[in-house]
Amino acid sequence: MIEPKTLPGFMELLPSEQIEFNNIKEKIQKSYEKFGFLPLDTPVIESSEVLLAKAGGETEKQIYRFNKGKNDLSLRFDLTVPLAKYVAEYWGELSFPFKRYQIGKVYRGEKAQEGRYREFYQCDIDIIGDEELSLRYDAELPSVIYETFKNLGFEKFTICINNRKILNGLFEELGLSGCSADILRIIDKIEKIGKEAVEKEIANLGVEDAKINKILQFIEIDGSTDEKLEKLKDLGIESQLFNTGVSELTEVIKQIRMYKVPEKNFKIDLTIARGLDYYTGTVYETFLDDYRKLGSVCSGGRYENLAEYYTNRKLPGVGISIGLTRFFYQMRKENILENTKKSISKVLIAPMSENEMDYASEVGRILRNANINTEIYLEDKKLKAKFKYADKLAIPYVAVIGEEEKQNNTVTVKNMETGEQENLELGKVVEKLQFTANFR
Amino acid sequence: MIEPKTLPGFMELLPSEQIEFNNIKEKIQKSYEKFGFLPLDTPVIESSEVLLAKAGGETEKQIYRFNKGKNDLSLRFDLTVPLAKYVAEYWGELSFPFKRYQIGKVYRGEKAQEGRYREFYQCDIDIIGDEELSLRYDAELPSVIYETFKNLGFEKFTICINNRKILNGLFEELGLSGCSADILRIIDKIEKIGKEAVEKEIANLGVEDAKINKILQFIEIDGSTDEKLEKLKDLGIESQLFNTGVSELTEVIKQIRMYKVPEKNFKIDLTIARGLDYYTGTVYETFLDDYRKLGSVCSGGRYENLAEYYTNRKLPGVGISIGLTRFFYQMRKENILENTKKSISKVLIAPMSENEMDYASEVGRILRNANINTEIYLEDKKLKAKFKYADKLAIPYVAVIGEEEKQNNTVTVKNMETGEQENLELGKVVEKLQFTANFR
Repeated sequence: MIEPKTLPGFMELLPSEQIEFNNIKEKIQKSYEKFGFLPLDTPVIESSEVLLAKAGGETEKQIYRFNKGKNDLSLRFDLTVPLAKYVAEYWGELSFPFKRYQIGKVYRGEKAQEGRYREFYQCDIDIIGDEELSLRYDAELPSVIYETFKNLGFEKFTICINNRKILNGLFEELGLSGCSADILRIIDKIEKIGKEAVEKEIANLGVEDAKINKILQFIEIDGSTDEKLEKLKDLGIESQLFNTGVSELTEVIKQIRMYKVPEKNFKIDLTIARGLDYYTGTVYETFLDDYRKLGSVCSGGRYENLAEYYTNRKLPGVGISIGLTRFFYQMRKENILENTKKSISKVLIAPMSENEMDYASEVGRILRNANINTEIYLEDKKLKAKFKYADKLAIPYVAVIGEEEKQNNTVTVKNMETGEQENLELGKVVEKLQFTANFR
Repeated sequence: MIEPKTLPGFMELLPSEQIEFNNIKEKIQKSYEKFGFLPLDTPVIESSEVLLAKAGGETEKQIYRFNKGKNDLSLRFDLTVPLAKYVAEYWGELSFPFKRYQIGKVYRGEKAQEGRYREFYQCDIDIIGDEELSLRYDAELPSVIYETFKNLGFEKFTICINNRKILNGLFEELGLSGCSADILRIIDKIEKIGKEAVEKEIANLGVEDAKINKILQFIEIDGSTDEKLEKLKDLGIESQLFNTGVSELTEVIKQIRMYKVPEKNFKIDLTIARGLDYYTGTVYETFLDDYRKLGSVCSGGRYENLAEYYTNRKLPGVGISIGLTRFFYQMRKENILENTKKSISKVLIAPMSENEMDYASEVGRILRNANINTEIYLEDKKLKAKFKYADKLAIPYVAVIGEEEKQNNTVTVKNMETGEQENLELGKVVEKLQFTANFR
């Protein structure tokens, strides 16, 4: 006998949780589709040569990599590298700007710890341009984020926006371009480690106090969105990169307003750098206002060149990602999820005996034809056991079918929440169940 | 520069094909849910010890197996073994009969050849009983198959039904139980290799001619469903197993009729054994009448004990599986798929210039709020390029927005198929687009 055990770091849910998870996944998908993003579904396994074209350091250590026959294979660790491969491979057959979404599992052999998963869903959207891509897409993404989180039932969340050119331009001005990546990485942690630690870490890089002060003065710019933009302009920094960044950010903010994303749902946050060297312009992070400690639940940004390792064509893009598995884990832990158990079936048909099976199957057929998810309980059990089954599965209605119901072409419908019970004609049953709230 | 290449044996689709694929996958899912099957999503990676508890021979050779740290891991090669693990692991928290569906990718390192995939989707449903499971579920599954293929748009398909006890009982009667698995495997190929080859192969096992004749006489039983059942009873075979099989099959057929599966969509086929030793009762295969050569597109059956390697509890079950990736490949190759390109967006909004961007975003918001998938083309391109983009993506409508439209609060909507163009008030646009056929 072998112990049936799921590996640590791999999320596996009970059915009622899985329904909830799928519900969220589907809402994200529908939100993405509403903006015209096209579906992709690339393989989980790729040749290591392709997948690791760029990778290095930490990423490479976490990869699930193995040989099969004479092939050196790896499991994808994100959905961006497969997208780069895909766009380079099928470039001639795609229409640009290429807007795609992909919702799929990715793999990272991280140290197993609570809330960290080795297999997890990413829900990505990206817009890829051929040689160029309008800044307008940078402004469209926050409107997609807004729509998506609204559809997930959230109201209090903030999309934080910044532009990497502003930061990089500042470092250019200060003559710190050489260690800008290091400084950005440190700034990125300010929320976690605090201002003083940031100061100290930057000093450790050998940066002079005056410059550190300038950096901190910059980071601490506050006020309304428009005030921040003004203050940025007032800093008198001459770096062209800096000023391009400010004007891009100004334009993006203007257009986000055009998309009618409410003022309370976005803000400029000059400390956001997104650790990766990858991003070159607009960057996003999204926080739940009441659960700021969860960290960003939706992040991304603009990059200059998606697929430089695979093609000479310049493919700029902008994208965001929701790490759904971790997000779901967090929502469950913080009790952000609705506290109602969800079911797939709206009604359980409970035939009293063998004699009513034919009528039960007819009722089932009629309900399903009316698009009502319907399970027929087929075991010979006492009625009590059937009610218990429906209760455990959170099925909202039980349709009891006995001799009388069969003779009169009726059904006795019990509302499992209120306990109410009524005897209804078949047509009325359809009507009743069709217009009561379903789990979706 | 690294060549961007997808591995052979891994299906990767262009967006319009992916939309079609997802459409089919969703229809299968909704069909399964209509009967109350609960969703599961087990990990792709399992510990090799768990996954290979039973495997051996061919299966084991095909497994993607590797080490990560000190762990011996494997990718799942079907969805049944993970189900067995799952039910054994969470037995105390599940409700029985446990009806679950799982739609997910599985991995087999088969020799790459056309139409054979190393990564492919399986769409499984199973009903698992705790210690026992009513035969009624054996009859429910054909009604699920019927509903599913009807929802996929098929009319001419046949669900072939048999019972392994009949075959096993026959062998018992003939004193051939020792080589019954071998004989079943040979019979299973009758469609492919023909009657004579079957005769010869069975003779090669050392079976006497008289017995071979009896087997063939049995296999060749023909007539209507009821005639076949009669002829089976008339064979005068005394084996109890055989007679249990015949009475189970009779009962299953009776109930399939109760579920109103049309006579033309099911039949008894006594040659179906389903190679695997796994099945112990009812077995199913499903064929498209006009594409018989594709082989079975949906197969399964009843098994005695799902999880004997993981638990002492007896967990009988019955299930079916659709190998979606191969099926999709076949449908595309045989031109069974509808010949229309599908899109995600119902309309592309084409603003004439920067000046109309604000109004364009307003129109987009109104359409999306009415649940209409809407893309706004944001690049500064000539109108012609925007039409071409919509055409390539098969987006059915383009909403042109110029100075006049903005001033009058209207939209000029062009039907991309007919070329018709009309200027409509905003409210009318919603109405028009909402009630035209969508891709789904």
